[in-house]
Amino acid sequence: MSNIDLIIQSQKYARNIVYETPLLFNSKVNEILGKNIFIKPECLQITGSFKFRGAWCAISHLKKENKILNGVVAYSSGNHAQGVAAACKAHDIPSLIVMPKDAPKQKISNTLDYNSEIIFYDRYTEIREKIGENIANEKKLTLIKPYDDDLIIAGQGTCGLEIIKQSKKLGVEKAEVLVCCGGGGLSAGILLALEKYAPFYKLRTCEPEFYDDTARSLKSGKREINETNNPSICDAILTPTPGELTFPILKRNAGEGLVVSEKEVLKAMKFLYQHFKIVSEPGGAVAAAAAIFSADKLNEKDIIVVVSGGNVDSEIFSKAISENG
Amino acid sequence: MSNIDLIIQSQKYARNIVYETPLLFNSKVNEILGKNIFIKPECLQITGSFKFRGAWCAISHLKKENKILNGVVAYSSGNHAQGVAAACKAHDIPSLIVMPKDAPKQKISNTLDYNSEIIFYDRYTEIREKIGENIANEKKLTLIKPYDDDLIIAGQGTCGLEIIKQSKKLGVEKAEVLVCCGGGGLSAGILLALEKYAPFYKLRTCEPEFYDDTARSLKSGKREINETNNPSICDAILTPTPGELTFPILKRNAGEGLVVSEKEVLKAMKFLYQHFKIVSEPGGAVAAAAAIFSADKLNEKDIIVVVSGGNVDSEIFSKAISENG
Repeated sequence: MSNIDLIIQSQKYARNIVYETPLLFNSKVNEILGKNIFIKPECLQITGSFKFRGAWCAISHLKKENKILNGVVAYSSGNHAQGVAAACKAHDIPSLIVMPKDAPKQKISNTLDYNSEIIFYDRYTEIREKIGENIANEKKLTLIKPYDDDLIIAGQGTCGLEIIKQSKKLGVEKAEVLVCCGGGGLSAGILLALEKYAPFYKLRTCEPEFYDDTARSLKSGKREINETNNPSICDAILTPTPGELTFPILKRNAGEGLVVSEKEVLKAMKFLYQHFKIVSEPGGAVAAAAAIFSADKLNEKDIIVVVSGGNVDSEIFSKAISENG
Repeated sequence: MSNIDLIIQSQKYARNIVYETPLLFNSKVNEILGKNIFIKPECLQITGSFKFRGAWCAISHLKKENKILNGVVAYSSGNHAQGVAAACKAHDIPSLIVMPKDAPKQKISNTLDYNSEIIFYDRYTEIREKIGENIANEKKLTLIKPYDDDLIIAGQGTCGLEIIKQSKKLGVEKAEVLVCCGGGGLSAGILLALEKYAPFYKLRTCEPEFYDDTARSLKSGKREINETNNPSICDAILTPTPGELTFPILKRNAGEGLVVSEKEVLKAMKFLYQHFKIVSEPGGAVAAAAAIFSADKLNEKDIIVVVSGGNVDSEIFSKAISENG
C-alpha cells in the first residue's frame, strides 16, 4: 500500500536523478491576484512533466527487486509514456507504450526518441487498460500503470516532500496546494506527504470542465464517471474516473475540487509564460487557471500551484500566448 | 574593486530573495549534441533575468551604507530596468529608468508595474549614459549603471557561485561556461567566481553577429567598438563596446568569444522551449545558440549554458517556436 514510508524510499531512488524543481514566486503576481502564489514548475522535470518521478522510482524499485520481466509496457496519453520511456532507457530495459493516436506530436516523437516502441489506439472507441494488460500477458512484460500503482503514487509523492520543504523555508505555515488531477496519482502522492509533514496544508484537485470526475466524486463520496468523451486540449488529464487506489486517499483529506474552462486554461498558460517564463501544456496549467480564476473558492492566503507538465505543440502554445489567447 | 570577497558578500544579501535557479540537463539533448549540456535558466530569476541579482545586491549594499540619495536612476534596455525597479520597490526607494523607446512592450510594462518612472530616449541618436548622469546630478539620484559598477558585477557573480556548486555536485570537473555578453557584467562576475573556485572551467562570451565587440576585443586585447547600430532582435545585449571595468577581468581569463546569427538564436529559443520548457528572449538565448551551432569551437565535453533572460514579446516567441522559426 502506498504510504509515507514508500515515498521516503522513493526519494532515495530519486536523488541526483529526478530534479528538485524550484518553488517560484513573484511579488507582482501576488499583488495582481491578492494571494501569495508559489509555483512548482514540474514542466522543468526530466521529460517535461512530473511523470518521470513515478516512472523512475517505480522502475528502480522493481529492478532492484528483480521484478522486471522481459521489459516494460505502459499506456499513457503521453507524459507517463515519456517518463517510462526515459526511465527504461536509463536502466537499459526495453519499453513498449500504448498511446492514443491523437496524442500531441511532441509527446509521440519524444517517446520514440527514448527508443520506446509505440502501439497506437483510438481514445474514443478502445480501452487502453485492456490493450495494455493483453500485451503484458502475451509478451511477458511488466505493466506500469499511470496512477493506480502504489509505487507510482509514492514516486509522485516526492514532489510533495519538496513542496513542504521549500515552502516552509519561505515561511509558509498554512496553504492550499492546487494540483492538476487526471487519475489522481500526483494528487494522492502529494496528499500522503502533506498528511504526514504538513497537516495544515490542504490539497485541492483541479480539473477541466466536462472532465470533473474527481470534483464530483469528492462531493458524492464515490467514484463518479465522466459522461463525455469530447476532445479537450487538456489531453494529459482526461481520465474517465478517479483511480481505485488514488481515490480513497484523496477522499480522506482533499478539499472541494476546482473546475476550470478551456479558455481559462489558455489564459493561465499565457500568465505562466509572461510572469514565470515557463512553458506549460493545457493539462499542466489547470491548477494555475484555478488559482487565477477560482480565487473566490480558495480559503488561504498562501497558494501553492503545481504546473504538472509542459509538453505542448507549438500551435497551441502560440495560440495561448497571442494577444487574443 | 569587484572581487571574490564582494561576490561572497553579495551572496549574503541574495539569500532567500534571489532565486537559486536550478541547473537543468537532459540526456536526449546530450545525445543530439554529443556534449553534456547544463542549462542555467536565469529567465526563471525574479523579473525574468539575471539582472535582479546585481540590482538587488548593489542596492541592498548601498542602502546599508546609507549611500542612496533621493532615489535611484538607471539606464537600461529593459532587463536591468526591471531588476532595479523591483529591488527599489522592495526597499521602498523611488526609481527612475531611462529606456530606449523601442524596448519590448513587456519590459516597459513590467518596469511600470514596479512603480518606476520611465524616461524614453532614442537608441540610435542619443547617448543613454549622458542622459542618466545628467538626471542623477539634477535630481540628486544614485546612478546604478548596468555593468560598469563593482557592486553590480559582484551581484551577477552569485550566478557563478551557484553554477560551480551545482555542476560539481553533478560530477563536472572541467567545463566551458557559455554566457550571453552585452557590457560584460554577468560574464565578469561569473569569471571572478570561476577563477577562485573552478580554475578548470573556461568562460566563453557569446554575442550576436554585428555586435561582436567583446569577441573582437578579446582577440585584439583592447576595447573594440561595434560599427553598426542596426536593429537586432537581441535587444538585451546590444552594447557599443565592452565595459571599462568588465573588460580587464574578461581579458585575463576568458576563452575565444563566440558569435552567432539571428537565425541561430531563434532556433535556440525553439530548442529551449522544446527540450527544457523555458521561455528565453533572443538576447538570452545567444549562449544556447553557440552551444548548438558553434560546437566545433568548443573544447570540453561538459558545457554550461547560461540562459540570461526571458522577457520576450509573444510575437517574437511565437515566430521562434513555429515550425519555420
